[in-house]
Amino acid sequence: MTDLRIAQLNMPPGMVDFSAGQPSPSLLPLALLRKAAADRLGGNDAPFLAYGAEQGDGYFRSALAGFLSEHYRIAVEADQLFVAAGASMGLDLLCTLFASAGDTVFVEEPSYFLALRIFNDHHLNIVGLPMDADGLIPEALEEELTRHRPVFLYSVPTFHNPSSVTLAAERRQELVALSREYDFFIIADEVYHLLNYAGVPPPPPMASYIDSNTVISLGSFSKILAPGLRLGWIQAGAPLVKRLSGCGLLDSGGGLNPFTSALVRSTLEMGLQHTQLTTLKTAYTQRKIALCKALKRYLPETVRFSEPDGGFFIWLVFPEDVDTKQMLAEAQRQNVGYLPGVRFSSLGRLKNCARLCFAYFDIPELEEGARRLGEVFKAFMNDDYRMKNDE
Amino acid sequence: MTDLRIAQLNMPPGMVDFSAGQPSPSLLPLALLRKAAADRLGGNDAPFLAYGAEQGDGYFRSALAGFLSEHYRIAVEADQLFVAAGASMGLDLLCTLFASAGDTVFVEEPSYFLALRIFNDHHLNIVGLPMDADGLIPEALEEELTRHRPVFLYSVPTFHNPSSVTLAAERRQELVALSREYDFFIIADEVYHLLNYAGVPPPPPMASYIDSNTVISLGSFSKILAPGLRLGWIQAGAPLVKRLSGCGLLDSGGGLNPFTSALVRSTLEMGLQHTQLTTLKTAYTQRKIALCKALKRYLPETVRFSEPDGGFFIWLVFPEDVDTKQMLAEAQRQNVGYLPGVRFSSLGRLKNCARLCFAYFDIPELEEGARRLGEVFKAFMNDDYRMKNDE
Repeated sequence: MTDLRIAQLNMPPGMVDFSAGQPSPSLLPLALLRKAAADRLGGNDAPFLAYGAEQGDGYFRSALAGFLSEHYRIAVEADQLFVAAGASMGLDLLCTLFASAGDTVFVEEPSYFLALRIFNDHHLNIVGLPMDADGLIPEALEEELTRHRPVFLYSVPTFHNPSSVTLAAERRQELVALSREYDFFIIADEVYHLLNYAGVPPPPPMASYIDSNTVISLGSFSKILAPGLRLGWIQAGAPLVKRLSGCGLLDSGGGLNPFTSALVRSTLEMGLQHTQLTTLKTAYTQRKIALCKALKRYLPETVRFSEPDGGFFIWLVFPEDVDTKQMLAEAQRQNVGYLPGVRFSSLGRLKNCARLCFAYFDIPELEEGARRLGEVFKAFMNDDYRMKNDE
Repeated sequence: MTDLRIAQLNMPPGMVDFSAGQPSPSLLPLALLRKAAADRLGGNDAPFLAYGAEQGDGYFRSALAGFLSEHYRIAVEADQLFVAAGASMGLDLLCTLFASAGDTVFVEEPSYFLALRIFNDHHLNIVGLPMDADGLIPEALEEELTRHRPVFLYSVPTFHNPSSVTLAAERRQELVALSREYDFFIIADEVYHLLNYAGVPPPPPMASYIDSNTVISLGSFSKILAPGLRLGWIQAGAPLVKRLSGCGLLDSGGGLNPFTSALVRSTLEMGLQHTQLTTLKTAYTQRKIALCKALKRYLPETVRFSEPDGGFFIWLVFPEDVDTKQMLAEAQRQNVGYLPGVRFSSLGRLKNCARLCFAYFDIPELEEGARRLGEVFKAFMNDDYRMKNDE
């Protein structure tokens, strides 16, 4: 029988699955895209229906550069931008062009678990590096550099997935200096950078350092507009952009998403993307506050977490002896879900952690989910239950 | 200065560059896509804006299966279809998942030159196999199989790029039998299969043989709707579709082009794609006839070609001692262009051949281009000219 799903996620009614790391369905911008499509398809000319320029539609890149200059608070040039069919596809292309099977890549511990899967498909050797409250620890990186020659370090520097930690400004500079000294790329996944809920902006994005020619920044419309568009970008220095634009895939198929770029160009030029970002930041700020408050109410103090300044996630640290993968069975019985910490570990660790996403659900659902999670934890900490399940 | 191109191709005014292997700009379906966008974006629900189902939108795949069943004249099931962001991207993904650096792939001689570039980016070892008027020669394939263990054979079985030759029906069966016996995949690039201009249909597509689990068929909307959409499909048996849908890139980014799939679903369901295909076949048939007639008029009989039954291309074979790469300089002076045969050779051969595309230009331009090509050839065959250029 044919699987007629349109969307990837299949959330059963009544379920509060905090593992869904994606924008809220209620905030998907259908009306906005209707306007953009009417604008772009209403003319007489459609160069965006032909094979697209390899680097991406120049007018779209110009509009995006203007948008990023404002929101990144740095000067972004259209020439630095290469249009990708989503950040994941950009990462996949970078793996094809810059790495070979058996090469080593450094990742943070924890790291975005699906990036790890892409690295596995390219048969790369993954080495995890420790983080603290200020992000990746440069001294730990330097120590590993004496043992390995990585082709790149993959990092989520701002509002980290899953830990929500932000890499401190001075550490960013230290990482760039190390990348130049030891000759490896830093692939900075900055898809959450624009989702800042604090009064003060985060440190400048790693995209500020692309002149080093060792830093490659990934961005995406998935978190600020709609994931189904499959539209993102790679920001890098001229030699890297040239290498990407000149590869066989681009030569054969042309630019990676010309039609969608043309429509999203209208959302940028008409100011609709700016409005949407404001809407999202307001909604997600409220959701984050509500979920943190509910977690404090329903979970004991032995379960630790930091309230994030941006992004999508809350990273829960349960007592050392709690295995969140084991606890998930009880959670699912109580119609609540999360992603166990071990999924984010390249070292098979973090078994007592869990990632919750606060972006997907409305506030009443988030509160109900937190309440259920409290019940789950209480039941799980009951010795009888755990002994029964350990048999 | 920013490159503001939207389209990949930059055709100077007055130039008739037959190397442009793409649909005619005058036939790009802007009005059709305006209707489809109004239809799909006019509702209240937009599941296609979320991360898409990994295999691709189920309703889109069902509509596509119906369309292909009619036009391929075989039973196509939605379950056999995996949605890709263009055939090139599908090919790139197959290289990532099924091949490793150093692996051998077989191609036809000549072969689609940009596929060869994709294989190079994946560091694959390319072996060219001879063709005749009935396509790839099975005996030659079998002989090479005693020397190599290819991961796959890449073939354009119907209306070949660049030679326009079609693989004979019985040879298709022989190739499938060999792929089973020697355990390699056949990746059949069938993007021209639907562009048939003869009274009789071509042999059944290689997609008919996917139950062997060794055959993978690539299809695309680039040649029958618009290349800028970056929408294509992979048709394969269940285990292969499962492997594709389960890879890291899909897990991370969801389906490869959900938004565009949703719009193109409307073109299929509203019958617009069917109408567009009829329009294209009529226009391209007339262009092919006009160009063949003009070539016969302006080129001497020493330049050989066969009138194609479908696709985009005419393959010119000049006398043995003509180097079409060398002749191109004279062609460009006379405002006409083509792709030299050597570009399609993995063996550095076919120096006396050239590919012309008849899809891009209107009839008067095709005729003028043929006239110029006749002048170019005449000038080039002038001994004085060639000696001067040989210095």
